[in-house]
Order: sequence, then C-alpha cells, then structure tokens
Amino acid sequence: MEIIKPRTLSGFMELLPDKQLRFEKMAQILRQTYSAYGFAPLDTPIIEDARILLAKGGGETEKQIYRFQKGDSDLALRFDLTVPLAKYVALHYNELAFPFRRFQIGKVYRGERAQRGRFREFYQADIDIIGDGKLDILNEAEIPAIIYKVFRGFGLRRFQIRVNNRKVLNGFYAMEGLSAQSGEIMRTVDKLDKIGPEKVGRILIDDCGLTQAQADSILAFIAIRGTNAQVLAALEGYAGRSELFDQGLAELKAVTANLAAFGVPEENFALDLTIARGLDYYTGTVYETMLLDHPEIGSVCSGGRYDNLAGYYIDKPLPGVGISIGLTRLFYVLDEQGLLNPDLPSAPADALVLPMTQDPGPAIALAETLRGAGLRVQLYGEQKKFKQKMAYADKLGVPFAVLLGEDEIADGVCSVKDMGSGQQIKLTPQAAAEHIRAALTAGECPVILEA
Amino acid sequence: MEIIKPRTLSGFMELLPDKQLRFEKMAQILRQTYSAYGFAPLDTPIIEDARILLAKGGGETEKQIYRFQKGDSDLALRFDLTVPLAKYVALHYNELAFPFRRFQIGKVYRGERAQRGRFREFYQADIDIIGDGKLDILNEAEIPAIIYKVFRGFGLRRFQIRVNNRKVLNGFYAMEGLSAQSGEIMRTVDKLDKIGPEKVGRILIDDCGLTQAQADSILAFIAIRGTNAQVLAALEGYAGRSELFDQGLAELKAVTANLAAFGVPEENFALDLTIARGLDYYTGTVYETMLLDHPEIGSVCSGGRYDNLAGYYIDKPLPGVGISIGLTRLFYVLDEQGLLNPDLPSAPADALVLPMTQDPGPAIALAETLRGAGLRVQLYGEQKKFKQKMAYADKLGVPFAVLLGEDEIADGVCSVKDMGSGQQIKLTPQAAAEHIRAALTAGECPVILEA
Repeated sequence: MEIIKPRTLSGFMELLPDKQLRFEKMAQILRQTYSAYGFAPLDTPIIEDARILLAKGGGETEKQIYRFQKGDSDLALRFDLTVPLAKYVALHYNELAFPFRRFQIGKVYRGERAQRGRFREFYQADIDIIGDGKLDILNEAEIPAIIYKVFRGFGLRRFQIRVNNRKVLNGFYAMEGLSAQSGEIMRTVDKLDKIGPEKVGRILIDDCGLTQAQADSILAFIAIRGTNAQVLAALEGYAGRSELFDQGLAELKAVTANLAAFGVPEENFALDLTIARGLDYYTGTVYETMLLDHPEIGSVCSGGRYDNLAGYYIDKPLPGVGISIGLTRLFYVLDEQGLLNPDLPSAPADALVLPMTQDPGPAIALAETLRGAGLRVQLYGEQKKFKQKMAYADKLGVPFAVLLGEDEIADGVCSVKDMGSGQQIKLTPQAAAEHIRAALTAGECPVILEA
Repeated sequence: MEIIKPRTLSGFMELLPDKQLRFEKMAQILRQTYSAYGFAPLDTPIIEDARILLAKGGGETEKQIYRFQKGDSDLALRFDLTVPLAKYVALHYNELAFPFRRFQIGKVYRGERAQRGRFREFYQADIDIIGDGKLDILNEAEIPAIIYKVFRGFGLRRFQIRVNNRKVLNGFYAMEGLSAQSGEIMRTVDKLDKIGPEKVGRILIDDCGLTQAQADSILAFIAIRGTNAQVLAALEGYAGRSELFDQGLAELKAVTANLAAFGVPEENFALDLTIARGLDYYTGTVYETMLLDHPEIGSVCSGGRYDNLAGYYIDKPLPGVGISIGLTRLFYVLDEQGLLNPDLPSAPADALVLPMTQDPGPAIALAETLRGAGLRVQLYGEQKKFKQKMAYADKLGVPFAVLLGEDEIADGVCSVKDMGSGQQIKLTPQAAAEHIRAALTAGECPVILEA
C-alpha cells in the first residue's frame, strides 16, 4: 500500500491526550460558570449561507473567510459566534424568551496568514444577553462577575477586569467638539501603553489636527487613574455638559455599585478610560481582561454592550451585551508560558485495573465496582510482562494501578498501587474506591499555575 | 438598512434552547460514560488536507465530501471521525501509549441529497481502542458494556446489543467453498428481515449462482437463534473445519463469557449471525444496537473490530475496535417519535431571582448565594410589571422564581415560588438553596421516555 505522509494543517490545533484533558477542563469550567448564570447552551452550524454570514460585508474579515461552492450553494464557515447568534435570534425571534441568554463554545474559522500562535481554526467561548427593545443595565453590571468567576475557576488571582463606557468616551469627545475625529483619536489613544503620552499628544496634533489644548484635554482625561471611587469622582468633574456623557457616567456607577454583592474584589476590577474596543458597534459598557503578570498576552476576555445585534436580519432593535474568550489562543499562550499546572491530573483514567489471573471475570467485576463509585477506570487486558504493564501505567500517567491476583481474589481484596509513591496496599473493592477517590479529591488543583 | 432574510441551511440541525439542553444532556452522558471506561477526549480539526482525508479514496463518500481550495491548499471537511483518528495515531504514534483509547464527539460533514431526517452536518460520538500490533480480545468484550451503560444512561431498557464475528462468517463461507461470493451473499442475507428467507434463498440461487444445498446451508446457518448458550452450542456443530471459524467462535465465547461481570443483562445482548456490517474493514467482533420498540430506526450504535486502522499513513499494523453513535440523527428520531422525556428539566436556570426593590444589591447577593450552593441562577433586572416577569419565568420554564422585596430583606428571607404548583414559601437564602436543590434531585429523570 502506498503510504501518504500524515500531517495536520498549519494553523490548526491538535493536542496530545494529556494536553487535551487540560483543554477540556477549561471548557468545562466555562460551561459550568456560564450555566451558573442562567445562560443556555447554543450550537449553530459551522457552515452558513455565505450571503447571510457576510451581510455586514467588507473589511479584513471577508478576505480571511473560508468560502466555497457546493452544488449551487454559496457557503462559508463562520468566522465568529456573533453573526450566527444574530441570525439565530432573528430567525427564531418569536420562539425565544427575552432577555435571551446564551453561551456558545465553538470553533470558528479565519484563513489568516500562518504564524506562530495564530490559528485558522479556533474556539471562541461567548456569552451574550439579548433584550427585545430594551435591556437593563444590571446585565452589564453582571458581566464582570462572570468574568471573575471564570478566571478564578481557572485558578488565577492576578488578573484585572478593565471597564469603560463608550457613552462616557463619546460624550467627552462631543464636549470637546471632537465627535467627528473620535474614531481616529481613540485609535491613537489605544497606542498609549506602547508609545507613551508624549507621542500620543504629538500624533493627536500633527496627524489628527487637534489643537494643543484639545490634545492636553484628552491626555488629562485618559490619565485619570485610581480606585473606582476616585475615577468616578474625577468624571463627576465633567458632568452636566453632555447628556450622553452623563448617561454613560450613571451606567459606570451602576456597573461598579454592586461589585461587592457580586463577589468581585476591587483588586480584580478597574475603571480604565483608555479602553475603547476596536469594533464600532459597542455603545455602552466595554470590557477587557488582563493577566497582570502577562500584559504581553493582551486582553484574554473582551466584549461590551451593543444596541443592534441583528439589524441586517430583522427590523427590531435587539440590544445586547456579551463577552468572548479566544479559548484556543488562550490555551496556547498559557501552555507556551508554562502556566498550565503540571500537577493537574491529565490521565484518561483514575485507575488501571490489571487482571493477574487467566480468567478476567473477577477483574472485570472489580473495574465495574470502581466505576460504580464514580471513578474512571481502564481495564488492561493485554498479555504483557508485569514490567511492561507498569510502564504503560506510567506512560498514561494514571495515579493508581489496581492488581487482582489469585491471592487477592481468595481474600476478597485488591492491591492498590499508588503510582507516585510506589506504595501498595490491600483493600476491599469498596475501600479501594474510597481510597482512590479521597486521594483524587485531595489532589484537586487549578488548571493554571500562578507565579 | 436592507434586510437579508435569515435562514439556516437545509440539512443543518439548529435547536431551540429547550431542545438544545436535552441534546447537551445526551452528549454529557456520552462523555461521562466514555470517560468512566478510561477513554481520553480527542479533538481533531474539522478541516484536513483533502489528499490525506481521501487517501482511501473512491466510493460514495468522495461525492458527498465538502472539498474546496483556499489559496493553494486543497482542503476538505472530515466526513467521519475514523479517518482523522487514523491520521492522528499515525502522526503521533511515538507519543501515544498503546492501547490508545480515545473518544471523540464531533461534527462531521456529508453533502447528501437533502431529505427529511438526513443531515449534512451531524455529530458522531465515537470510541476506539487502538493496539500497537496486537489488541487483546478483552477490549472487544468490553464494548457491549459501554454500549449498555450509554443507553441505560439515556433512560432506556428496551434495547438490544447484537453481536457477531466476521471470522465466524468468513470461516463458515470458507467451509462451504463460497469465500469468493461471500460479499455478495452477505449483502443478500442482509435483506432477510425485509424479504424473508424464501426470497433470500431464491436470490442466492438465481443471482449468486449457489446450489440449492449451499443456499439451504446458508439459510440454516443464519436461522440459528436462541440464548447465547444455544447459539454457541449450535456453532460448535461447525467447529473443526476452518481455523478461521474456530478462532471466531473462540472470540464470540470470550465476548459473551463475562457479560454478567460487566453488568450486561442477557436480555440486552444477543448473538446474531445475520449481522455483517457494511464496511469491508471489520475483521472480528461486530456490533449493532436496536431499540426494540423502534426497529424501523435501524441500528443506533454500531462498530466492530478491525485489523488495520492507519495503513494509508503508517507502515505499522494498528488493530482496533470501535463503535459510533450518530448522535444528531438519533436525537432527531427520538424527538420525531416523541421519545424525548417532556419532564426532563430544560430551562437554562434552576431559579430566576427577581429583585423587588430599587437597589438590586440584596438580590445580587442572594443570587450569588444560590449559585454558591451549586444552582443555576438567572438574575432578572428588567423594569417590567410583575405579571410580565412571571410570564417570562413561565416561558423560560424555570422551576422556581425567588422574590426579594423590602419585607423579605428586613426578615432575612426570600420568597421561593414553585412555578409548577404556584406555592410560595419564605426561606432563608441557605434554606432556599437546599429546598430548590432537593426538588431538582427528586425530579431527576431520564432523557428518553420509554413506552
């Protein structure tokens, strides 16, 4: 037979089993946390009608899209989970209860130039809350709590949710008579971290055509720092000059007012007036999330409030708020940086049962008993030398091997070998199950390891 | 804005939230059961290099495949999970521990003619055990236990796992001197249920060119029925005439010997000599699974033992055994037949918390307390009339609404309203959590409803 060299396409993540188990653990934490906040799981097709998917059209996205013909159909692979959500909500509008809260963890496709750490197929893990006509600010206030629970669930403490409000920004630019240039200004301000305030000021004057006074005013505004209370107090100084600004400030206050009730510590939350988010459609609260010890990663969870989810598909105002986590990229970066906890169990089984007798019956029954107690158990039936069996258990990384020979069967026990310590003890099947379970629970540890 | 009519492509399943939750429940049972038997989760790309995916080439599959160019790349969407597994095992051969046990629940793509109940995008839920050179028969014996646990997990009792062995069949045809025609004969025998033994006999003689004696012999063979012991006893009558047959018979015995130890009742298992499975590559035990009250659905879980998983990609013999469940089609048929349990909770939250005060703080804290107790809780902040709030709770299908007004806050309690009975009681937050949790546990019920 002619052999074709197997390969996986570049830009497509394919993990070995131990890594995959870690990835699944993160996905599971996301599912659990999103579910705890009343989001329903959603699953939409990966292939959509290209005309529908590209209703918004244009831009960088269109060049990256996987688009192809099948028969007479013009098809495309989804490039995010937001457009399919808009289609879904518009299509099923009459059958949904609003606010409609959904989460979706699914693969999306972008044919970007291949480059280290850039993926063409990657998971996004999104939540959105969609209102019918209106959506209360409480939904925007709840988002930081969800982000907090997710990253704490991963095992992190040193992260910060950074929050701003587009109405505050747009209101401020309106006060300064700079509404027309606001897009350009925000793109410049976005470079603050990289190039510093002086250079930002220069660009604002030289390239955006601002006066020195206007540039100074902007630099003073984005320099507002401090606790939530301090930032809000500073913003009060601008109040009363723009209805939009005042509305935005009231929203920022509402979003920060109940952090304690939501269980979000101040240290994990910061009002940050430099955050604007690239996408044009955010209209209220916007969110970014930084790993404090790894600012070079950039935001690991972003989103915001928008006014019109599905205007391309339905003549109804559908405001919403949502966030997205680029799970594949996040996982890749965590792994790359050595932040995945090596102590996290990553074996496909908690115990490997080894029949040491001709008749596998007793070992089968033992394995079923252990499974009945909630353990993940692999039965190993290969005819190998004992040493090879142990080498297999080691390679799998199973924490326990359970041996069952004639002696054990006669005594109604099994031999439980701790693969880490090498210690071996004889226990009844029930006691063995409890022993293994207790050891696993004691060893529970976070997915991500903090420095 | 011009509005584009939203639609979902025909042949692509897209569920409403209550159905999606039922689907997720089935997927979760599959993940748990597969994990309990020590299978590692695997996730491979949906897009592969077309030349690699089609290494085997030819046939019906190739016409159905989604294949397209992107830049210079010849790409295709996977049409099953077996070919990507073969690629994976060949590619990562040196890094895997054998036997390698993996499960994968993922979408596959086949551009079939659109037709009711036929899907172009559908989930398969597969397990496979891959050996390096050898694979013990115990792995084949374990498969029925896994199938049994999966379908019992779904809530079914009236199903039967039907098992045969290709060596028994091929050995039998060899004894009869019919090896050359065995494929044609098996395809004819496969029609037994539909057309009956008489017509099968006629076709065997008229179209396959068998003698009356040969046809009679085949009809007698496939007429063997009864308990496992009876079928094995009948097969003993053919022993000693073909090495292949004898080996197959020994394997069938090994597969049936430990059913009790595996916890599989006899009534859910049957040796069935008419089962051959279409695919050429099965070489040992083969499996089908029938819902006894719905034979028209056909097999809902099939698979078998094969000798050479990845011969197209690597020069190593990699025998394996695996099964596949067409989850999307199974779900569709169960729903169509009204077999999905209407009592299964399908709301996105266990409780809807309704703040009845201006300040949402206490309600936020209450919701967090309930979540801390493991409940899925949605906080409802919309400014609506009480009646509209209740209508929303009803439409979502949440079992409990939890109201928090000034009186409750003053008394340190909350009002828990059972949405089914309408009963409302005041409880402390902790007691409310326990009350709701107890009600949910009492209401635990299977996904599938049996007649």
